[in-house]
Amino acid sequence: MNKFVRNLLTEWRRLGLPFEDETMIIAVSGGADSVSLAVALDDLAKRKKLNLNFIIAHFNHNLRGAESESDAEFVKDLAGKLKFEFAGGTPDPKSPIQNQKGNLEQNARSARYKFLGQVAKKHNAFGVLTAHTQNDQAETLLFNLIRGSGLEGLGGMRSVRDFEIIEKFQIQNSKFKIIRPLLNWVQRKDTESFCLENKVRFRQDTMNDDLKFSRVRIRKEIIPLLQKLNPRVIETLAKTAKLLSEDAEELSNISQNNSGNITQKSLKAHSKSMRLRVLRDWLKRHRGDLRQIDLKHLEGIERLIFSRKSGQLIELPDGEKVIKREGKIVFENSRVEKS
Amino acid sequence: MNKFVRNLLTEWRRLGLPFEDETMIIAVSGGADSVSLAVALDDLAKRKKLNLNFIIAHFNHNLRGAESESDAEFVKDLAGKLKFEFAGGTPDPKSPIQNQKGNLEQNARSARYKFLGQVAKKHNAFGVLTAHTQNDQAETLLFNLIRGSGLEGLGGMRSVRDFEIIEKFQIQNSKFKIIRPLLNWVQRKDTESFCLENKVRFRQDTMNDDLKFSRVRIRKEIIPLLQKLNPRVIETLAKTAKLLSEDAEELSNISQNNSGNITQKSLKAHSKSMRLRVLRDWLKRHRGDLRQIDLKHLEGIERLIFSRKSGQLIELPDGEKVIKREGKIVFENSRVEKS
Repeated sequence: MNKFVRNLLTEWRRLGLPFEDETMIIAVSGGADSVSLAVALDDLAKRKKLNLNFIIAHFNHNLRGAESESDAEFVKDLAGKLKFEFAGGTPDPKSPIQNQKGNLEQNARSARYKFLGQVAKKHNAFGVLTAHTQNDQAETLLFNLIRGSGLEGLGGMRSVRDFEIIEKFQIQNSKFKIIRPLLNWVQRKDTESFCLENKVRFRQDTMNDDLKFSRVRIRKEIIPLLQKLNPRVIETLAKTAKLLSEDAEELSNISQNNSGNITQKSLKAHSKSMRLRVLRDWLKRHRGDLRQIDLKHLEGIERLIFSRKSGQLIELPDGEKVIKREGKIVFENSRVEKS
Repeated sequence: MNKFVRNLLTEWRRLGLPFEDETMIIAVSGGADSVSLAVALDDLAKRKKLNLNFIIAHFNHNLRGAESESDAEFVKDLAGKLKFEFAGGTPDPKSPIQNQKGNLEQNARSARYKFLGQVAKKHNAFGVLTAHTQNDQAETLLFNLIRGSGLEGLGGMRSVRDFEIIEKFQIQNSKFKIIRPLLNWVQRKDTESFCLENKVRFRQDTMNDDLKFSRVRIRKEIIPLLQKLNPRVIETLAKTAKLLSEDAEELSNISQNNSGNITQKSLKAHSKSMRLRVLRDWLKRHRGDLRQIDLKHLEGIERLIFSRKSGQLIELPDGEKVIKREGKIVFENSRVEKS
């Protein structure tokens, strides 16, 4: 058995994933990472190591015209060759991603995950498999470090977590998982080698070279400089993220007992870092997620609580507000649904 | 009062530092940061805001020939102008820094701190003031992130801590502090402006431009790239470091209760991150500090504990060893004193 395939099986076991009688959605963009994941899972299926129903899902963001179309065709062909069912998706034609407000990368990601969630729900899947690697983890850590997100953000992605569908700003904890079986041990160079060794073609996303995206700058400019100081920096950062996410979890257990009812008095008892953690938990509880939230918002809420004037407010992204009323902070969601 | 001077006084108060009847050593290299600190403290002394005995200390590392000499002269002159006592130091002529084994920057730092500790001890000082800024804090965070040091290292430097003298590999907790009154609010550009506004000259250290040093690469190459993604990244990283150091402290309180007697069983009860933290505390207790220790050493000790073979050992920098004997780990310091 190929080493990559063997290691995938080892990680599958380590993560406690099922070996039979379940449906798994594989999210495939057509790049080397996701193609490797699909091909290696097919190998394990052929060897009867995994007896699962795999479905390849591809979301065509429609951001690159003909290139997007060929990617979708390519992934559909791959699914055909592997004899996996194929599920394709595109954005709502009434709301193309490039016309949406806010950050293009984040909007594309939201639309993609919404689609993956729908596919998983429809097929009553155990989970959605994504091909994130140590490189993605290292980039996530750096991305969050640069924007100032604190310990939670530095912890990056988790290998297995509940898939949360964000619909109309309420979170429904669904029964399926998001699973990243390459996150802990694979680097981008490994998946490219795997494809080359196995004579499997993969696609290059030209948006991966567009320096107007922060992620691309981190990948193409910042990480190569870090590698001059530590040639194994990707592995180092990915391991650091994992440790920091465990640290965050320990602290989160303490914080969650304190984020129900926030007053000036209850916050004063904590260190600044624990105060921000409690506020983060409080905000997540009311808002559903922490997207686009950074340190300056949390510090704003902290100042709001400790200021003597009442009736003041802090504006959050997307028109949400935190208001102080009678010494307590209140979350107000004034995002208006478009009819 | 100049804004810089006023803010220094505010921070002085916030840190709970004494206003009279104490001796304070100011560590001055001659660069803009330390010259600003000395000049601003002199201003506060002249305004009778601080009634302290200031001594300017300068350590000439003797690494840059005539340039080093002129820096030392420059700082001595500055002390004369401010009417502060001056204490100069140089490395032991029998052991010049450039001939010492190991990392040049670390050896220079050790020699400098040893000197500062001696000056503080001699004058029975309250503390040693250093002029580290948010830039230094941001660089420390990045330096530690790149080498893989976990939450503790990412927390960077503290504004006030006990000064530990490392002498013959034993730590004597001394009665004086190391104090960094610029760390939380000053950036390098602020000290340069302060010097220019006040028509005070300062020196440029040519080693600050030498890209063979990791610190210089971080400062000159990496941070400018990060600033393209977040123009306020220095402030962001410095604030992040502060929050992370508070997080580390919360977790450290939990860990320290567990690092006395390490066995396989006691470690197994923890998450990986807490295991490493317990090992780090254990190592610090035996070794005095964690210099040159990174993730791979800690993971080595972890593997040692969990491996079934006994008699194995992990080598640490400077010839120290961790050995497993009868299920327990033992620290062995085989660093040999040169006669």
